[in-house]
Amino acid sequence: MTTSVSRISSSVVPTASARVRLRPIDGRGVVIRDGLLADRQAVNREVTLLRGAEELERAGTLDNLRIAAGRLSCERRGMVFSDSDVYKWLEALAWEIGREPSAELEALAQETIELVAAAQEPDGYLNSWCQVVDPAWRWTDLKDGHELYCAGHLLQAGVAFARATGDLSLLAVACRAADLIDEVFGQDPASGTDGHPGIEVALVELYRQTQESRYLTLADTLATRRGSGMFTGGRFDLRYYQDAESVREAHSIGGHAVRALYLAAGVTDLYAETGDDALLASALRQWDELASAKTYLTGGIGSRHDGESIGDPYELPPDRAYCETCAAIANIMWNWRLLLVTGESRFADLLERTLYNGFLSGLSLDGGSFFYTNPLQVRNAKRRHSWHPVACCPPNIMRLLASLHHYIATTSDAGIQVHQYATSTIRAVVPGAGPVELAIETGYPWSGSVSVEVVSCGEAEWTLSLRVPGWARSATVDGQPVAPGYATLTRRWRRGERAVLELDVAPRLTAPNPRIDAVRGCVAIERGPIVYCFEGADLPAGASLADVALQTDTQPADSGRLASLAGVPGVSADGVVRNLDGWSEIEYSDLRERPRDGVGAPTQLLAIPYFTWANRDTGAMRVWLPKSD
Amino acid sequence: MTTSVSRISSSVVPTASARVRLRPIDGRGVVIRDGLLADRQAVNREVTLLRGAEELERAGTLDNLRIAAGRLSCERRGMVFSDSDVYKWLEALAWEIGREPSAELEALAQETIELVAAAQEPDGYLNSWCQVVDPAWRWTDLKDGHELYCAGHLLQAGVAFARATGDLSLLAVACRAADLIDEVFGQDPASGTDGHPGIEVALVELYRQTQESRYLTLADTLATRRGSGMFTGGRFDLRYYQDAESVREAHSIGGHAVRALYLAAGVTDLYAETGDDALLASALRQWDELASAKTYLTGGIGSRHDGESIGDPYELPPDRAYCETCAAIANIMWNWRLLLVTGESRFADLLERTLYNGFLSGLSLDGGSFFYTNPLQVRNAKRRHSWHPVACCPPNIMRLLASLHHYIATTSDAGIQVHQYATSTIRAVVPGAGPVELAIETGYPWSGSVSVEVVSCGEAEWTLSLRVPGWARSATVDGQPVAPGYATLTRRWRRGERAVLELDVAPRLTAPNPRIDAVRGCVAIERGPIVYCFEGADLPAGASLADVALQTDTQPADSGRLASLAGVPGVSADGVVRNLDGWSEIEYSDLRERPRDGVGAPTQLLAIPYFTWANRDTGAMRVWLPKSD
Repeated sequence: MTTSVSRISSSVVPTASARVRLRPIDGRGVVIRDGLLADRQAVNREVTLLRGAEELERAGTLDNLRIAAGRLSCERRGMVFSDSDVYKWLEALAWEIGREPSAELEALAQETIELVAAAQEPDGYLNSWCQVVDPAWRWTDLKDGHELYCAGHLLQAGVAFARATGDLSLLAVACRAADLIDEVFGQDPASGTDGHPGIEVALVELYRQTQESRYLTLADTLATRRGSGMFTGGRFDLRYYQDAESVREAHSIGGHAVRALYLAAGVTDLYAETGDDALLASALRQWDELASAKTYLTGGIGSRHDGESIGDPYELPPDRAYCETCAAIANIMWNWRLLLVTGESRFADLLERTLYNGFLSGLSLDGGSFFYTNPLQVRNAKRRHSWHPVACCPPNIMRLLASLHHYIATTSDAGIQVHQYATSTIRAVVPGAGPVELAIETGYPWSGSVSVEVVSCGEAEWTLSLRVPGWARSATVDGQPVAPGYATLTRRWRRGERAVLELDVAPRLTAPNPRIDAVRGCVAIERGPIVYCFEGADLPAGASLADVALQTDTQPADSGRLASLAGVPGVSADGVVRNLDGWSEIEYSDLRERPRDGVGAPTQLLAIPYFTWANRDTGAMRVWLPKSD
Repeated sequence: MTTSVSRISSSVVPTASARVRLRPIDGRGVVIRDGLLADRQAVNREVTLLRGAEELERAGTLDNLRIAAGRLSCERRGMVFSDSDVYKWLEALAWEIGREPSAELEALAQETIELVAAAQEPDGYLNSWCQVVDPAWRWTDLKDGHELYCAGHLLQAGVAFARATGDLSLLAVACRAADLIDEVFGQDPASGTDGHPGIEVALVELYRQTQESRYLTLADTLATRRGSGMFTGGRFDLRYYQDAESVREAHSIGGHAVRALYLAAGVTDLYAETGDDALLASALRQWDELASAKTYLTGGIGSRHDGESIGDPYELPPDRAYCETCAAIANIMWNWRLLLVTGESRFADLLERTLYNGFLSGLSLDGGSFFYTNPLQVRNAKRRHSWHPVACCPPNIMRLLASLHHYIATTSDAGIQVHQYATSTIRAVVPGAGPVELAIETGYPWSGSVSVEVVSCGEAEWTLSLRVPGWARSATVDGQPVAPGYATLTRRWRRGERAVLELDVAPRLTAPNPRIDAVRGCVAIERGPIVYCFEGADLPAGASLADVALQTDTQPADSGRLASLAGVPGVSADGVVRNLDGWSEIEYSDLRERPRDGVGAPTQLLAIPYFTWANRDTGAMRVWLPKSD
């Protein structure tokens, strides 16, 4: 039986020798007590996780495992990779139970872990498609079969239980699965790898949890095999499968967004544990391109429905944005790893942008329905769905929300770094300075005022680092101006001492890079880390969102809390409803003879946080509006 | 044996009782003698059709029929609908042989017709997928099986040979196939219809050719069954399959573009032959929406790669434009039918726009390679291909080019209407005025001067109608200003008498409807009916097409013939290369603190006809450029 060795409960726990500048704090030591993120965690616990149980039953996803376990006899249902939905949901249960015990959630978890264990073959194989539909299929369709991808989520769930609850039973299942995979794929270079990355990041975590170096070696082996052009034929190209460039030489990020980002997270973890500089260099090259030319304002990734893929640089259509919720989650995972490795705030900045916008938009305010894609413009309507035939996103949302407190703060030899702000308690051990407890009080992200109180600490000097987001027009710590990055406060902290960070979260207008063709001549509204949008429902009667423009000579301003949207603050802005009647029958016109736009009717526009859209009505929505001038 | 009754050789021949305002002219009476269209017809004859023969062999498409005929024993290759590639190519051969005899083409045609006949089952069934791969498959996968779609192209090829060469052997095969389809689908409402329209337009033409009214009834039956929601499940929605609305009630055009447009052509033909006003009303409603909000400047149709489909109104991204070449062809087919039915120039206008831009772009200048999709912007490169695993477009291009002369002119009770201008000879019989021969001399589309000489005619008065395109800033006939529409010249014409149409084809700047978000702030260049574009290869060294903007206070001007592009005229325009260095690392910026664009370097830009792009280099291309002001 594998021994669990990590004492830290978090979703990324680098080993003691890992090349990281920052280290995660035990998730049991971080409690988000109040505010938006606390609310999202509560909704996940009270609504979404239970809905997950219902929907996994309704869709037959759990039944598939029952058939594999010989407990049920009926036809398998759902996609080839549907087992992974169960594992992601289990991982969510693990973090959630670790966060706060729950007899109901524990019973669900125990029952399901027992089922998963029962479904596993004596040799460690576990995949209900193969076991139920076609035993001869095993390892024969690596390109599209998702066997290792599913196993990756099993491994992550096993690691999560070991860390969060101490229950090692699923970790044992995971190790048996990983051992078989190592046997089959570890030595033979011709054995290939999976068409959908995900196993790499999972194997590194399994290595961290068990200190079994075979798993790290296997992760490296599987990652290194990519880029050899093995996944030819069929609808998609090599890039889709992350098989066009080697992980050490990749210069550009592309192909299927979720595949690309899971792999990038795995590559970054591999660097952390192996110190192979080529891996980090490749990851940073790809991140630079992603963050400067392939990321939506919401942090969403994926410009193309075709292949659910990342487009060319600056190809960022708001209407046809794919921005799969899973891609947002994968990007949060990757940015967190880059942050640990480098300690650079730009990764925490992008994590924040993604978290509050392109990720949170994937779940309805009531926690009961989901978006798979997260466009920045909808001309007609888009309805959230209660589940999906490809149900990768809902349980992925659940595991991220259940582990959200892992992403708040880190430690280093110097002290504690706070990356994401929420009313929270943080307990951590600072090397050389002993246990520290911080109490953070803030109305963030709606308020920019963050009070950090040192509730307890030792006598030695240590540094409190507070992230100053790149979006902040101005920021002060204890009244002193600070620049974006980390404001560092090094001192012998005393109990009860406070630091107050003030960030300017006044609504602001945002311009896109002029090379982003699809939003030329447009502006958006942001407020602190929150991207805002406009919904047709908030327009004057009769006006169409297609005809609205924003004035840019006045600044948008707070307009009060919106009762219909859980009290989030609205933003008002001066706009006009353009009169385009002259164009009604004309699609293109000689420039010299073109219809002149009629005088637009000035109007007060209401903007709402992007992540709250499609919670009232299902009408038109857009983040970017044309400038009226 | 079916008798061929039509005496007119053309690709659309309404019956004597059809509800049409205009009637096609026998294709044997129209010869395009010189100019761009003549050149394209010659290249098709000399290069493309023969390449088609080679590629159909190489891809195994002809072998599939040989296997079905019991003449070969090997595995079937290619897509389920690949038989239709053979039929479209045969149709092209028919029109081309009818245009001008050729022993080589006739031998190819005879050999292939004989093969097709040999492959047909005794009961009339003919589909190599079913016959070779799975006989039990027959009529079981109407949604995606394309059996009726393939049969439709067989019917059209059979009709083409009957009309163009008088060879009735393929028509006999077609009638046997249609008779079987009528038996299976004609009576039983539950028998359904095909997931890919195409059979409707073909059955109407078969009816016209044979006067067998069962075929017309069957066309109506199959069209009328659509919209009942029979094509559920799988990747695509009902709209994709043209199964969301009934053909008489459809208000909006959407779903798979080629499916939508073939169906619309069939519906228009059905109206022509049945007089069912609801069909025409529906077609016109859909056309209005298409032409005012869903058509690219090039005439291309299809905004989405996802489902190869038409998007929402004003959703017209230039970079991700799908604009399948087949959709351009289908739209030409539809617009021609609407023109015959209504006599309105707007349909000839859109036909022209599509023909010279979104259609011609599908074939390389040398006739040897193809585009399947025809975007209006490419950031990196796009290479023409010599064939395609889904080879629907190449033989479709061939059949349209081989029948291009059918689209030049029509007759009515009043006289002759010239819709498309080319140096050509037109011989037609004007009811009440006898045979007329026109000789048209023009450098169109490069020159706007069109001389129409009446070479011979009778004594009676008749009307010569000359289309004045909607794009013309100014136009005269014999020096008198005329407005867009048809300039009508009613008189007792004498031999040798001429009319001279002068159209202003000076290069002009074109603005898009402000609701087309994706090209906001941009302009394009047109010259006569030709849409121009910019290629990276023509920029000053070091400049990127992403950074170029057009000045709109000066007009573009002719810059002489381009030797590297078969002598087509280039257009020069004043532009600037914007200095966006300040933005190089920044994707989004606070509007107030955004980097200011550096002073752009003025530069002379060269624009080339869109249809000639990707014939020299495979670099960046765009039709729409930002305005520099």
